[in-house]
Amino acid sequence: MSSTDDWIGALQARTEQALERVLPPADKPPKRLHEAMRYAVLGGGKRLRPLLVYSTGMALGAPEAVLDAPASAVELIHAYSLVHDDLPSMDNDDLRRGHPTCHKAFDEATALLVGDALQSLAFRILATPTSALPAKNQIKMLVLLAEAAGSRGMAGGQAIDLEAVGQHLTLSELETMHRLKTGALIRASVLLGAWCHPTINPHTLENLDRFAQCIGLAFQIQDDVLDVESDTVTLGKPQGSDRARDKPTYPSLLGLTQAKAKAQSLLEEAHQALRVVDAPTEHLEWLADFVVQRRH
Amino acid sequence: MSSTDDWIGALQARTEQALERVLPPADKPPKRLHEAMRYAVLGGGKRLRPLLVYSTGMALGAPEAVLDAPASAVELIHAYSLVHDDLPSMDNDDLRRGHPTCHKAFDEATALLVGDALQSLAFRILATPTSALPAKNQIKMLVLLAEAAGSRGMAGGQAIDLEAVGQHLTLSELETMHRLKTGALIRASVLLGAWCHPTINPHTLENLDRFAQCIGLAFQIQDDVLDVESDTVTLGKPQGSDRARDKPTYPSLLGLTQAKAKAQSLLEEAHQALRVVDAPTEHLEWLADFVVQRRH
Repeated sequence: MSSTDDWIGALQARTEQALERVLPPADKPPKRLHEAMRYAVLGGGKRLRPLLVYSTGMALGAPEAVLDAPASAVELIHAYSLVHDDLPSMDNDDLRRGHPTCHKAFDEATALLVGDALQSLAFRILATPTSALPAKNQIKMLVLLAEAAGSRGMAGGQAIDLEAVGQHLTLSELETMHRLKTGALIRASVLLGAWCHPTINPHTLENLDRFAQCIGLAFQIQDDVLDVESDTVTLGKPQGSDRARDKPTYPSLLGLTQAKAKAQSLLEEAHQALRVVDAPTEHLEWLADFVVQRRH
Repeated sequence: MSSTDDWIGALQARTEQALERVLPPADKPPKRLHEAMRYAVLGGGKRLRPLLVYSTGMALGAPEAVLDAPASAVELIHAYSLVHDDLPSMDNDDLRRGHPTCHKAFDEATALLVGDALQSLAFRILATPTSALPAKNQIKMLVLLAEAAGSRGMAGGQAIDLEAVGQHLTLSELETMHRLKTGALIRASVLLGAWCHPTINPHTLENLDRFAQCIGLAFQIQDDVLDVESDTVTLGKPQGSDRARDKPTYPSLLGLTQAKAKAQSLLEEAHQALRVVDAPTEHLEWLADFVVQRRH
């Protein structure tokens, strides 16, 4: 096992444990809701957002223990968005990570409440009083997460996505949609990690922000590329589902070659941004590469 | 116009203005989502929860301007819960306050995102940095609201409600369900108002908490009673809908007379709790009476 597998595996395990701790136990009522919340969150996923929180925070010298709360919070927001996104009135997906989606494994009403309760839990966790951070920093982090999740962040991106089905979007409109839909929470992951260092210089923050915005967009382009290129088994969801729904994508707008080139150029810009950060950023570099080179 | 109508009207208008300010403008993208969020929140409702925030805070001497954020936040959580509750997979209601429900006026996917974005916005508003309160108090308030909304609060109560359809519940199980489903947010409204006073003595807080718990439960009993006694026009939603769904209610468990008597006895306990609070509580007294005596 390479040393990369080591730290990725260790942080994924740490994420799992942190989530396991903050999720309500399945034997405490309302049991079915708690069971479904755990089903939706535990035991799967790349945990990219928590990896970004940990890798950013640790590069700057923030203690791992302080990073558990924001790492869990962003993953809970991400997990809630997947549960709601899969519902029949949205994408109507039966499979997620190769398993039945939450509303298939349970029922629609439960899946709706699972998403709602996971969102509340994310803010509950991020607001947990701690002596490791000034309360003012925590307030800033809560504002950041709430904005990244809300109508001018993730939920807004999904609304634009809904309206875009069957429409022609310009490249700039497509970019706005993805900046909100996926980019906002990826950016929040990096910035939350950074803010776990009680004092951080504005120059570093600015470059980490640029890094985060580049990989956020690159992530979505790669998602679109994979929807064209990969197969259902590798993807864990039906291949070609974007095209089937007539959703505008980077390959549909730019062609596959140009879409891949754009992802590469964003990756290079992300690396450039890291080069001027005065901290050991090799884990962030690896994650940036992973975002563009992943096969699922 | 009586002086009661005066202060109620003034605080309802203040709530409307505060909500108007914090909701994203309908002419900013994503326009349809923002329009639907405003549709779901503005121009209707008794604003009971904001009235409780303002009345509690003002009784204790907290400035009105500090109370706007928590008053808006609880109403946004309440509004989001109504939008999701009305969805076809939940209560499948077409009418709310005499108007088409959000998914009828827009569409299901939009209504889902409206609820999601309103929840994020509630936490965004409550986390707005302010010089009027120590950041530590704000953190406490965020924890309170997140717990009141989550799986061991409102969302949990709705999950128990779902499971309860067609089931026999004991009185204590019914009480637990309502303590979570409606009681948690009503209690949070009173406590958020109280915490807007930078220092509050534990004895006052304890009695306000008892007051809040009594009226929270009384509110739900009265809701059940109205579902039996009132007509669709007064109620603004189909009368008898609980019975039609075979939901356990206080009248179905206790009979109508006993259910009303229980609401009265909770009202008396609420007044008792206020009597030992050393502050001008007449607005809270009026709200307690209103909760039990309202016709819709």
